Formats: sequence, C-alpha cells, structure tokens
Amino acid sequence: MSKQYHLNGKLVPSDDAVIPVRDRGFMYGDAVFETMRAYGGEVFKLDAHLDRLERSCSMLSLNHGIDRSELISRVNETIEANPFTDAYVKLSISRGEQPGKLTPKETVDPTVAIVIAELPCGGIDGEPVWDTPAATEIVTTRGVPDNAIPSGAKTHNYLNQILARIELSETADEALLLDQSERLLEGATSNCFFVQDKTLHTPTDSLSLLPGITRKVVIRLADKHEIPVKTGSYGTDALKAADEVFLTNSTWEVRPVTQIDDTEFSIGPITEALQTAYSEMIQSAYY
Amino acid sequence: MSKQYHLNGKLVPSDDAVIPVRDRGFMYGDAVFETMRAYGGEVFKLDAHLDRLERSCSMLSLNHGIDRSELISRVNETIEANPFTDAYVKLSISRGEQPGKLTPKETVDPTVAIVIAELPCGGIDGEPVWDTPAATEIVTTRGVPDNAIPSGAKTHNYLNQILARIELSETADEALLLDQSERLLEGATSNCFFVQDKTLHTPTDSLSLLPGITRKVVIRLADKHEIPVKTGSYGTDALKAADEVFLTNSTWEVRPVTQIDDTEFSIGPITEALQTAYSEMIQSAYY
Repeated sequence: MSKQYHLNGKLVPSDDAVIPVRDRGFMYGDAVFETMRAYGGEVFKLDAHLDRLERSCSMLSLNHGIDRSELISRVNETIEANPFTDAYVKLSISRGEQPGKLTPKETVDPTVAIVIAELPCGGIDGEPVWDTPAATEIVTTRGVPDNAIPSGAKTHNYLNQILARIELSETADEALLLDQSERLLEGATSNCFFVQDKTLHTPTDSLSLLPGITRKVVIRLADKHEIPVKTGSYGTDALKAADEVFLTNSTWEVRPVTQIDDTEFSIGPITEALQTAYSEMIQSAYY
Repeated sequence: MSKQYHLNGKLVPSDDAVIPVRDRGFMYGDAVFETMRAYGGEVFKLDAHLDRLERSCSMLSLNHGIDRSELISRVNETIEANPFTDAYVKLSISRGEQPGKLTPKETVDPTVAIVIAELPCGGIDGEPVWDTPAATEIVTTRGVPDNAIPSGAKTHNYLNQILARIELSETADEALLLDQSERLLEGATSNCFFVQDKTLHTPTDSLSLLPGITRKVVIRLADKHEIPVKTGSYGTDALKAADEVFLTNSTWEVRPVTQIDDTEFSIGPITEALQTAYSEMIQSAYY
C-alpha cells in the first residue's frame, strides 16, 4: 500500500497528491507550514504548532477559514491511515489559486496538504534521526531581515535557507546564519544553543529568527533542571569560544554540534543532560 | 477547448497541469521563472529572458540540464497550441522532487511549466493592459538584501512582494519598496523611473533590485531619443519631487504613475514619448 497523504480534506495516495501549477504555493511560495513529530501516533505539541501556524497565517493575511478542530482531525486521520506511528508530519496551507494578480484576494480557497513520512523515535530506547552530531559552517548568506519578511512566519519561501545550505562544504551539514550586523541568528532548519560557564545561551527572538517549538521546550527543560538560560545577541567569537554547542528542531530534537568552521567541540554534559531530559519527557508522555 | 499549458515536455489542458505537493517549487519556492510577452505569436526578447533565466538558475545552483533550444521549442509549442497570439507567457523551472532533505542534490529532475494567458497587445492601435495609470504607495516592507537572496535571481520566493502589496490601501495598486538604507529599489512587480530636469532617473542595479528586461529596453529607447538617463541611489524625497514618474515591466510596458502616497503627478511628455516609442517598436517588429 502506498503512503497516504491528506489533500484538501481527503486522504489520497501520496502519488495522487498533486496541486495545480497555478497554485500560489507553487508560483510564489505563498503558503505557511508546520513540521511536526508524531510519537506513538500522537503529535507532539500539536497545539503549539497550530498556534504558530495561526500566527504565520496572520502575518501573511492568509485567512484560510478552516477551524482548528478540522485541522487536528485531518492530521490525525493522516497518521491513522498509515502503517507507522512514529512520523514526520508536515502540514501546509497555501493561498490556493487566484488567477491574474500578485495582490492576494481576501477570499481564499486554500490548498491544505498533509505530507507524512516514517521517522523512528529517538527516545531512550530508540535511535536519533541524525546519524552523527552536526558539523556546521557559518555561511556568508545572511538571514532575511524581519522588515522584509517577518521571521516569525514559517513560510514556503525557503530559498534563503537553501542558499545557506548550498554554501556548505561537503563535510558540513548545517549552515549557521548571521544577520546584517553579524549577529548569530539560527541554523537553516534549526535553532542554535551554546554553553558558556555552565550557562545555556541562545539568540533572543527579538532578532530576525524563527523561535522554534523545540527551542522553547529545551529552555523549559533547562529551567526544570536548574541550568541557567540566557537569551541575547551573540557574535561568532562568543559562539566559537563556547564549551558546548547544539541545535534543536522538531525532527532532530537536541543535536550536538562538534564543528563550527575549523573549531571543534566535544559533546558536553549540559547537552547530554538536555538530550536525556528530552528523551525522558517524550518517553513518559507517549510510550 | 480549454487552454493548453506545457508541463515537463508535453502540452496539457490547463486543468491537468498539476505537480506533486512534494515538488520543491511548492515546498520551498525553490524555482525560477520568467514572465514574457508574446506579440503576434512571437515572444518579445526571448533570448534576454532566457539569459536571465540562466543567471537565475546559476545563482541557485539549479542545473536543470535542458537546452535552450528545447526551452524555446516548448515556449513556441505552447503559443501555437492556443487560439490567441498576444499573450502573457510564464516559464517556470523548479528543482522538482528530492525527498527528505532541504539541501538540494546536484542531480535534478526539474519541473518545467509553461503557463499562458491571452493578453491584448497595447501598441499604437491596441489598448494597454492596465486600465489606469498606477497609484503607488511607499510601503514599510523593505526589499530583501542581496546577501540574503540575490536580487538578480527571479525566483518563486515572492512573499516579500506580496507583503508589500498587502500593505497598500484600497486606492493604490503598486507598492514601492525601499532598502534597509531607505533608498528606492523598485515596485513589487515593476521597475521605477522618474524624470527630473528633463533627465530620466532609475535606481542603479548595484542596489538589491531585479533589473527588468523592459527597464533595459526603455533605457535604450531613451538613449535613442536623446533623453539623458542616469542611474543612481535615490531617497523618497527625490522621487516625490520628480516631474514625471512611471513603472515598467513586461506586461505593463511603460505605465505612468499619477500618485505616490499623497503626492500627485501628471503624465508628462517624456513618459508619453517613451510610451509611443515602445509601442512603435513593438508595432514595427511584430505586426
């Protein structure tokens, strides 16, 4: 049986999940999305993801008119229709077709697509999604400023991040982006944390970055484990002088960084403590 | 008969022109395009458009592997398959499907889509595409800097321009964007020219703007008609103090501006001379 996706209210075999070339999602990247993790058949932090999706839509004035309960049903139907329970789930909403004009109309017939793929649970008994710690490079591609496209909106305009990834040498697998003032923002698909003097640091969300849901979870876990957390503006010197560095996102969870350009890092005790805390939280909540 | 589009090497009825939701063009706006005009069945400046498409691909490291002659054939087949000869033709090339990773693979199975719509010729006997001169507003959305996404690449990441358009009040129909240093860049879908002391001015392409093919044609026409042309960096004061203002793009050709925020402009003699010169050039070349 082929995988089942969900498109505009219906389950469809993945190969039949197609959209018109005139869809604004294709023509302009005029769409928002959330990437979520399902553990044991249940989406982690679904409400937080749908809150952010709502904020993304609001920033793009995309009034899709679909109730949250309906979105939740579609996500759950998608998971139930597939033979795996640990999964990556991507929910996208585009502004659909609106022939002729770049200026969007208020009335939207949205395209709603849910794409799913099996993703083994990390957890305490499982294996992490990534095979190795992250090797990163600070790229010359700069993040898009908030006043050009709001960084808090998670949209289908991903060329900035793609260009950052294209810059990487063969030995690296995540790009770290700075802003126009050379302050650390985030990874192409991740948020960045570092440890200095037993304190956890991460760039403040007042910079032009997308504050991830995993980032928030990790900050809470650190609080709970009495690891001091500071947010601020950091240059590359502070980052490279760190004792530990790691990245977070929904699929990687907590992924240690062992390299930034030519600087090497060991996987340290705070990173390991947070990895364990994250795994235990998932284990106790879903299995 | 329904309109015929061209998708991945084949003519298809427009409603059957669909792409997978996993296409990177949909997921990330990871695609390039050109919007062209056909007059009397022939694309205006096709070579210049294909040159720019090639530059756009190069900036995104998108090696689609399709010969220029093949692209030209597909464009012409699309025009021939439809019952009109004056048309808007949009050629898009996306990086296709590459499951799993944001980082693009070098080997690409691209999605190539050609969308067409009838568009009456302006010309000396025709009517312009726009019903009225442009009413514009200088928006707070700033252009995306070159070091975040190269402005010379014409891509499917169009949210910056959409957000600019969304800001407009009901009486305006084109947004003018400034850069981070408050210098005039361009309209959301157009280049901007103004006349001061009988000299034509337009922002230099060393700024983060997309230098249009129509912009280049208009500069040449001005040279030919001995209208002095200067390119430079301009603030909003210079723009609003202008004697005449107009916009250019492939579909609008030369479109006068009669309003920028609360400042009104008349359609002046240099704008009219360039409109006439443009129409005469099209007329003599294609009809």
